[in-house]
Amino acid sequence: MSAFTALQRLQWSALDETQREAALRRPAQQTRADTAAAVSAILQRVRADGDDALRELGARYDGVALDDFAVGEDEFEAAQRELSPALRAAIDQAGRRIGAFHAAGMSAPYAWDSGDGVRCERVLRPIQRVGLYVPAGSAPLPSTALMLCMPARLAGCPEIALCTPPRRDGRADPAVLYAAASCGVRRVYKLGGAQAIAAMAFGTASVGKCDKLFGPGNAYVTEAKRQVALLEGGAAIDLPAGPSEVLVIADAGARAEFVAADLLSQAEHGPDSQVLLLSDDAALLDAVDACIAEQLRQLPRAETARAALAASRSIRVESVAAAMEVSNRYAPEHLILALRDARAWLPQVQAAGSVFLGDWAPEALGDYCSGTNHVLPTSGAARYAGGVNVASFQVAITVQEVQPRGIAAIGPCAVELATAEGLDAHRLAVALRLEQVAA
Amino acid sequence: MSAFTALQRLQWSALDETQREAALRRPAQQTRADTAAAVSAILQRVRADGDDALRELGARYDGVALDDFAVGEDEFEAAQRELSPALRAAIDQAGRRIGAFHAAGMSAPYAWDSGDGVRCERVLRPIQRVGLYVPAGSAPLPSTALMLCMPARLAGCPEIALCTPPRRDGRADPAVLYAAASCGVRRVYKLGGAQAIAAMAFGTASVGKCDKLFGPGNAYVTEAKRQVALLEGGAAIDLPAGPSEVLVIADAGARAEFVAADLLSQAEHGPDSQVLLLSDDAALLDAVDACIAEQLRQLPRAETARAALAASRSIRVESVAAAMEVSNRYAPEHLILALRDARAWLPQVQAAGSVFLGDWAPEALGDYCSGTNHVLPTSGAARYAGGVNVASFQVAITVQEVQPRGIAAIGPCAVELATAEGLDAHRLAVALRLEQVAA
Repeated sequence: MSAFTALQRLQWSALDETQREAALRRPAQQTRADTAAAVSAILQRVRADGDDALRELGARYDGVALDDFAVGEDEFEAAQRELSPALRAAIDQAGRRIGAFHAAGMSAPYAWDSGDGVRCERVLRPIQRVGLYVPAGSAPLPSTALMLCMPARLAGCPEIALCTPPRRDGRADPAVLYAAASCGVRRVYKLGGAQAIAAMAFGTASVGKCDKLFGPGNAYVTEAKRQVALLEGGAAIDLPAGPSEVLVIADAGARAEFVAADLLSQAEHGPDSQVLLLSDDAALLDAVDACIAEQLRQLPRAETARAALAASRSIRVESVAAAMEVSNRYAPEHLILALRDARAWLPQVQAAGSVFLGDWAPEALGDYCSGTNHVLPTSGAARYAGGVNVASFQVAITVQEVQPRGIAAIGPCAVELATAEGLDAHRLAVALRLEQVAA
Repeated sequence: MSAFTALQRLQWSALDETQREAALRRPAQQTRADTAAAVSAILQRVRADGDDALRELGARYDGVALDDFAVGEDEFEAAQRELSPALRAAIDQAGRRIGAFHAAGMSAPYAWDSGDGVRCERVLRPIQRVGLYVPAGSAPLPSTALMLCMPARLAGCPEIALCTPPRRDGRADPAVLYAAASCGVRRVYKLGGAQAIAAMAFGTASVGKCDKLFGPGNAYVTEAKRQVALLEGGAAIDLPAGPSEVLVIADAGARAEFVAADLLSQAEHGPDSQVLLLSDDAALLDAVDACIAEQLRQLPRAETARAALAASRSIRVESVAAAMEVSNRYAPEHLILALRDARAWLPQVQAAGSVFLGDWAPEALGDYCSGTNHVLPTSGAARYAGGVNVASFQVAITVQEVQPRGIAAIGPCAVELATAEGLDAHRLAVALRLEQVAA
């Protein structure tokens, strides 16, 4: 691949509507039909043959044949011993911060009493059985274990299963194990890919069936989650996952080397990651191109980043206000406001997964340890959904408690509406009680 | 159809696991393949031909050809004039109660400042463009208009579109219009069925494209929502909708005529509605059967109810505690606790859409005017999702603001984790800033 010179540059005001749509289009998703068929076959096999299918698929795809998928106490202990004190401390610190931010945002039950004998409430319950997926393909992701385990624990889910692919030596990544255990999650299975999703969605002799599945993954994992969410008797899922993406809005005062590093830290996730840079300052766009070229020379994963950058763009806009409009239309997973007055622009943000204000908030902080969650809406889903949080692991149940004087107060309203809607048994269920109250 | 004599009676303790699963199985969904193909064709037509397709499909399925789908001011005014004062008052009262309960449960933005130069926040934004569907097939449902419009308004959604099928005379149901207008929703389109969903999901010249769609509907509407939620460039949806269902747990002290009326008010929704009655008292089960037979003789929609009752069951359990276990496993949309100490049993409820405590809280109150929402999870989705509420119309966005001393405090943690995960550009994005801060 040739050396990087510059991001594809567009000028927003010169584009017509069709060109604007094209400029903000996400890279096309992968060969969906092939993946879908392969995943469907895997789901069927696991549903039919359970653990036997998991063993065979694990041998084929992870290159290791395991008798027992569950991580035992000795493996947890070995993980703790093996990890450097510095890494343990980092996982602990990130876990504390994630826990503190997520705990502060937990919903509370509430009640509304109308004073006439009717009391309505909303109570919260943990989802009983949740399944977490922590990838370990190109690299194991202990940070993802924290992002999923911490809110699940805060919600109080009684059964939390975590699947993560085994290494070639048959062990799970020690940092992932340490992160899970630090949140009190000890039911960890060495299972990866679509078969892990299938095991948690349908249940096998080893792995309990889950009500809802969480976590990022490769194209197979994502497709498996999509398919089980559609199946009768499958499991719900957290978010429709797509490739990761960042949109940066930078003004003339932004530091080009910081912006370049932020774009590259998104681009290194994968060749289908998308990166957009918006600025009203052409010199800044030039400077960022130069810094990207410079930094690429230092990066081991430069090939991946170059592929992602080839599909990425820098867009010259007339003003920061125009940039905010483009961003709201794109609805990025990550939005970096490398602006002199970033805080003042926050009210203009209508749709984004997570926002980073100013020069000192690189996306990488949110990925690891600011305290916010890094499982976020991609592919424009930020228009209608937020990232994973404690409420993602809870169900809200409404309740009504009615005294005899309460039905006397509001029963006639229900009778009137039931009559208008032609629902006679509804009317009768209220009218019978009204008669009794009157009697 | 022969006269009703009794619900199919089962004894839970006598059933093996397979029989228990069968006892709680929802009635099979309708001929999915036919419906799916028909709906897919409708979606494609509307996507390609916009308003022309809507006109033609409206003429075919709603029996009325409209030039203009939008409801004008004159039609709103006529609706207000035509409605009886009693019905207007009932809609107003229900709207006030729904508004009060939903407003009391709104999420708030929050911030967590760790005191070391890092501040994390969650801010809330309304979903910008929402589409509401209010059925008017067997009967128009002004109550559903309230249940959707009220939380959308409370969330502050700037663009709210509502579709409801036209009557044969080309007008919308006046009660639906009055309910919508009472919530400030005046962008109402006379469109029904899968084509209404398509119009809101893709946009046409008349109807703006929406980010998220809400509301119940028949099998075509439900399938259309399912399909647009899966399409690239489609719209998100509120809940996977299935036939309505109620589970009643009644003890020996319950009033059989109330229980029978509650079961029938569920059964009259449609032939695929499901009704389950659980009791530890055989005499109560017998008495309810007798009351159902009696009440059926008074009901205009008795045929529909009889069909639903044929697929419904009464289950004798050993104890109320056993009934709670069965209910949590079934995860009903509506759960009526016709128990002497209903409040004491509430903590045992793990999964249900909405719960009705005691003898004086018929489901019909929740359908209309207790204040809770009647758009609720069906088909067991209550295991992982709650009903529609204000948050359903909002997105939560996380934010991080970091001072130079903030990155000095937590940057090393991110560097350590990025190194462990082999994400070198992530490490670099933080390390570059740490150098600057130290300099």
